[in-house]
Amino acid sequence: MAVNRGPAVIDCDIHNTVPSAQALFPYLSDYWREYITESSFKGPIDTAYPKGAPTSARPGSRPPNGDPPGSSLDLVREQALDAWGVEYGILNCAYAVDSLHNPDTAAAMASAVNDWQIAEWLEKEPRLRASIVVPSRQPEMAAREIDRVGDHPGFVQVFLPVRSEAPYGNRRYLPIFEAAVRHDLVVSLQFGGFPGNAPTGAGWPSYYIEEYVGMAQVFQTQVLNLIVEGVFDRFPTLRVALIEGGFTWLPSLMWRIDKDWKGLRREVPWNTKLPSEYIKERIRLSLQPLDAPPDPRHLLQIIDQIGSDDVLMFSTDYPHWHFDTPEEALPAGLPESTRRKILYENARAFYRL
Amino acid sequence: MAVNRGPAVIDCDIHNTVPSAQALFPYLSDYWREYITESSFKGPIDTAYPKGAPTSARPGSRPPNGDPPGSSLDLVREQALDAWGVEYGILNCAYAVDSLHNPDTAAAMASAVNDWQIAEWLEKEPRLRASIVVPSRQPEMAAREIDRVGDHPGFVQVFLPVRSEAPYGNRRYLPIFEAAVRHDLVVSLQFGGFPGNAPTGAGWPSYYIEEYVGMAQVFQTQVLNLIVEGVFDRFPTLRVALIEGGFTWLPSLMWRIDKDWKGLRREVPWNTKLPSEYIKERIRLSLQPLDAPPDPRHLLQIIDQIGSDDVLMFSTDYPHWHFDTPEEALPAGLPESTRRKILYENARAFYRL
Repeated sequence: MAVNRGPAVIDCDIHNTVPSAQALFPYLSDYWREYITESSFKGPIDTAYPKGAPTSARPGSRPPNGDPPGSSLDLVREQALDAWGVEYGILNCAYAVDSLHNPDTAAAMASAVNDWQIAEWLEKEPRLRASIVVPSRQPEMAAREIDRVGDHPGFVQVFLPVRSEAPYGNRRYLPIFEAAVRHDLVVSLQFGGFPGNAPTGAGWPSYYIEEYVGMAQVFQTQVLNLIVEGVFDRFPTLRVALIEGGFTWLPSLMWRIDKDWKGLRREVPWNTKLPSEYIKERIRLSLQPLDAPPDPRHLLQIIDQIGSDDVLMFSTDYPHWHFDTPEEALPAGLPESTRRKILYENARAFYRL
Repeated sequence: MAVNRGPAVIDCDIHNTVPSAQALFPYLSDYWREYITESSFKGPIDTAYPKGAPTSARPGSRPPNGDPPGSSLDLVREQALDAWGVEYGILNCAYAVDSLHNPDTAAAMASAVNDWQIAEWLEKEPRLRASIVVPSRQPEMAAREIDRVGDHPGFVQVFLPVRSEAPYGNRRYLPIFEAAVRHDLVVSLQFGGFPGNAPTGAGWPSYYIEEYVGMAQVFQTQVLNLIVEGVFDRFPTLRVALIEGGFTWLPSLMWRIDKDWKGLRREVPWNTKLPSEYIKERIRLSLQPLDAPPDPRHLLQIIDQIGSDDVLMFSTDYPHWHFDTPEEALPAGLPESTRRKILYENARAFYRL
């Protein structure tokens, strides 16, 4: 059932799911097809979205054939694009190539996913755009993959899992940013990742809820690091999207880093302005999942505290489950101009749509 | 120069500093005195407060004899206790015993620090209270140290560095919490720590500003973990203080964990109420350093968003440098009743003073 939302909408976070390694066979070489067929390797099996967690999939998003939620273009059209009157929907395929330690396997699987995205999503549905999946543990190989497909008009960003072996401002990752800038692509940091190191600054937690809630802290680490490493100074056209990491933590982080930067900036002399300015100019955040306070007034305060209505971009995070009705998807009580920016204009400008 | 602040004040964070390993010699056995004299080991040398960082020490806090800031009782009296009209000041000695990998060395140094605190601080100045330094890597030994000195009326809490090998809700740390509860002591998580693992959820950052700003994320990890591991359910009288970790991130964390707990609580069935309720009932946070927003109105919003005026406790964080004038130390525009709670009543109730 379509929900007529009036003016057009851009959904900056729709997850398309590779149903199985076999689905990638048309895009893999004989070598890898044979490897997958004859060995016990069937593609990456890690996922940040356990099948049984209610947040992982909204009711009704599993296709009738039993394939995973997010794997059916028809359902994406019906439940995400048509339902919201979406003009552009941006696909973020969370296929966990970063969990593969064999660099050649990771590169081959990433290329196959990207070719699969072109053939089975972008070429079939003109409303869709997509993110380039890369072997992020191997920055040089990731850059080659970005160069290989980065000029395809359907790709608008690079997909990096927010969890990583080192923060992404580390110089080892420069080739990825150089390649993204070369093709004027957004670099996105996305919920999840399998780097092998602990997901907190105090070692390994015990429960999935800690990984899920705590992912917001990993986003904060990456924002801080990208700024102070000078990545935005080095690449004046670089834009970074934070997808599925929440945003109510943003004012506190901006205040803390601005204050401490005033005392410690001699460490990072390449930063020529307040850290919060880099955030407001270069970073955008997806709206859902929304760490909604019980009092809607508090959410409006947070948006006011951010100090810009340019930074939030509407997302459903389909097929993940964060709200039951369209009315819950957007903060209540927003001024109409802010609402339009969140629903459409911010993403259009950021992704150059 | 004394600043008459009117009614009494409790300063819940004053750092007393061990000037050198030699200062602990009266409290060490012959074995350890000889060990320190004859080997290159001169006590832990790690510090979360680099000598050159302007945040590490306020101007004028270094004693004339060249010893480190925080090492002189006379200066603590003059610059912290008298200046603020302090009725009780709580000492937090950040001597980095947790950086020592030899368990016996760590235990010996911790005991020496506690006996030094009794003899040279608590018995000389009746306004002072103190935190028990423990070999936190060795929970059983830490519990023994808590049992050894925990009934001394000067000790009101246990000092744990917020950075740890595993989050403190991990069952390996239960002996520490059991011992603290046995002596009705607050358990405090304090800025810093040297566990050997990375201080972020995305590996090792490059700069001190990242460790400093990012410590707020480690506090968030620990709060989340203590709740979902059921530590507060297991110990109904346990109170936890978060010292020097900021607090403007608290509303966002409460919203996020409450929301996600609703979806994922079957993982942690021992939690019998909303996670934010444990925070409001059992956790208190020190006021400084204050991640102050440029707009004072936003700070009042944060305090309102927390949903309780019981959780903040005044602190100077002496001798660390976070504000220039007493007026900057407290948020402007607080209702008088909230101001009194922050300056005095919350800490008095929490520490049973």
